[in-house]
Amino acid sequence: MSPATSPGTVHLVGAGPGAADLLTLRAWHLLRRADCVFHDALVDSAVLDFVPHARRFPVGKRSGAPSSQQAFINRQLIQAARQHTHVVRLKGGDPMMFGRAQEEIDALRGAGIPVEVVPGVSAGFAAAAALGTSLTQRGISRSVVFLTPAVGRNEPTHDWARPAAAADTVVMYMAAGQAAAIRAGLLAAGLPESHPVAMIEDASLSGESIHTGRLHELEALTARRRGGPAILVFGHILESLAATVAPMPTWTSAHAA
Amino acid sequence: MSPATSPGTVHLVGAGPGAADLLTLRAWHLLRRADCVFHDALVDSAVLDFVPHARRFPVGKRSGAPSSQQAFINRQLIQAARQHTHVVRLKGGDPMMFGRAQEEIDALRGAGIPVEVVPGVSAGFAAAAALGTSLTQRGISRSVVFLTPAVGRNEPTHDWARPAAAADTVVMYMAAGQAAAIRAGLLAAGLPESHPVAMIEDASLSGESIHTGRLHELEALTARRRGGPAILVFGHILESLAATVAPMPTWTSAHAA
Repeated sequence: MSPATSPGTVHLVGAGPGAADLLTLRAWHLLRRADCVFHDALVDSAVLDFVPHARRFPVGKRSGAPSSQQAFINRQLIQAARQHTHVVRLKGGDPMMFGRAQEEIDALRGAGIPVEVVPGVSAGFAAAAALGTSLTQRGISRSVVFLTPAVGRNEPTHDWARPAAAADTVVMYMAAGQAAAIRAGLLAAGLPESHPVAMIEDASLSGESIHTGRLHELEALTARRRGGPAILVFGHILESLAATVAPMPTWTSAHAA
Repeated sequence: MSPATSPGTVHLVGAGPGAADLLTLRAWHLLRRADCVFHDALVDSAVLDFVPHARRFPVGKRSGAPSSQQAFINRQLIQAARQHTHVVRLKGGDPMMFGRAQEEIDALRGAGIPVEVVPGVSAGFAAAAALGTSLTQRGISRSVVFLTPAVGRNEPTHDWARPAAAADTVVMYMAAGQAAAIRAGLLAAGLPESHPVAMIEDASLSGESIHTGRLHELEALTARRRGGPAILVFGHILESLAATVAPMPTWTSAHAA
C-alpha cells in the first residue's frame, strides 16, 4: 500500500445489471485483487461482497448532479492511482453506456494514468432476458436504439424522439419518471397510441417485475414502479411477448403500415 | 443422464464477445454443470474449455443459412431437454442481440420446455472498451443504435440507414463485408463523407485490432480486415479518440450543423 514509483492502472469495470453473478469473470478477478474500489450508488451490495480487502469508496452520483462532483471523483481516481497498483472504478451495467466514463477516461489519461475498460452486461440486456424476448427478430427488428431522455444539469435537451421513432426497437434508460413527456414525444414523432411498451424494474434482481401495455397507458404503467431502476422497451418485438407470456389487448398495426 | 420425467431447462446463455473471462459468473456455473452444450461456431474454444464433462454440439450457422437449419437446431434442443436436466445453448455476445434467439425460445416454449435467458456482453461493448471511447457522451451522444444491414436468405431488405442517421452513435454488426453499400446508404441518409468511423476486429481477443478513419475511406478501412468478426462504429464520439489515441485528419462538421 506504499506509494508506487509509477502510477497504477485504473480499471473502469462494468458491474452488470444488478445480480452479482452477472458480473464477468474478469471483473470478479479485478475486484479480488483491487487495492481500492470506487463504486456507483446503484451497484448492488452483493457485488461488493466480492471485494475481500480493498477500501471501498461510494461515489454515487444521481442524474443532474453538478459537474464539480464529477471533477472530485476524477481527482480521487488520479490520487488513488498514484498511491496504489490496482484501482477499480465500478459502474453499473456497462461503463461505456450512460456511465459518464469519458470524463474519467480523459482526466486519467491527461494525468498520465493507464486506463483499462472491462465491458459489462448493460441493463437493457437483462431487461430483454427478463422479458424472454429478443431485441432483434427476423423481419420485425433489425435495429435497436439505446437512449435516455434524461439530461444533466446545464446540459441542453436533445431530440431523443427522432432516433426512437426511426429504430425498430427502443430501450430507454432513466426514463420511467418522465412518462408524460415520453408519450408526447413519441406520438409527435409518429408512433401510434397502440405501440407496445414494457417496463422492467430491478431487472435481474430478486424483486424484478415486468409490466406491459400500450403507449397510451404509459403513465399508468410507470406509476406502478416501486422506486427501483427501470428500463422501458418499445417495439413490435413485444407482440410475441403478448402472444406467449402476458395477454395484451388487441391493437391495430397503424405503425407497421 | 437417464431420461428425465419432466423436461430439463434450456439456458440460452450469452458467451460474451470472445475473451473467455468476459463470460459472466452465471454462465460459467451453468457450463460447469451442463449435461450438454450447443454452441455457435463463433464461440471461442477457450470458453468451451470451461465445459468439464458435457457433450458439446457445434451448431454454427452463418448469415444466410437456410431456415431449415434453424428448425434442425430447434429439434435438437427440444430432444436434449427431454433427455437431460441442464441444457445450455451458448450464443456469442448477448443472446437477445442478433442471436436469432426468438426462433429457439418460441420452439422450446411451444414444446413445453422451460427457457431461461442469461444475458452476456455484446460485441459492441467490447469494441467500445477497445476504443477507450464511451458510446454515450454528454452533449455529443445520447442515443446509440445497434443494427446490421445483413439479412438472411429470403428475408426482405430493410431501411437500416434511417435509424443509423437518426442516432448519435451507430454500432454495426456483420457489416464490414458491405462497405460500398454502407457508405452509399449513409451518404444518402445525410451523413457527410467526413463522418468518423472505426473498425474493431476480434474485439477482446488477442488479435484485436482497431482502424479509424472517415466515411469516404470505409472501403479501404474494411479491406484491412483479416477475416475475424468486426464491428463498425460511427459517430462524433470518435472525435475524442482522434484527439487522445490515433491522429485522424481534420474534418468539417457538416453533419453537426
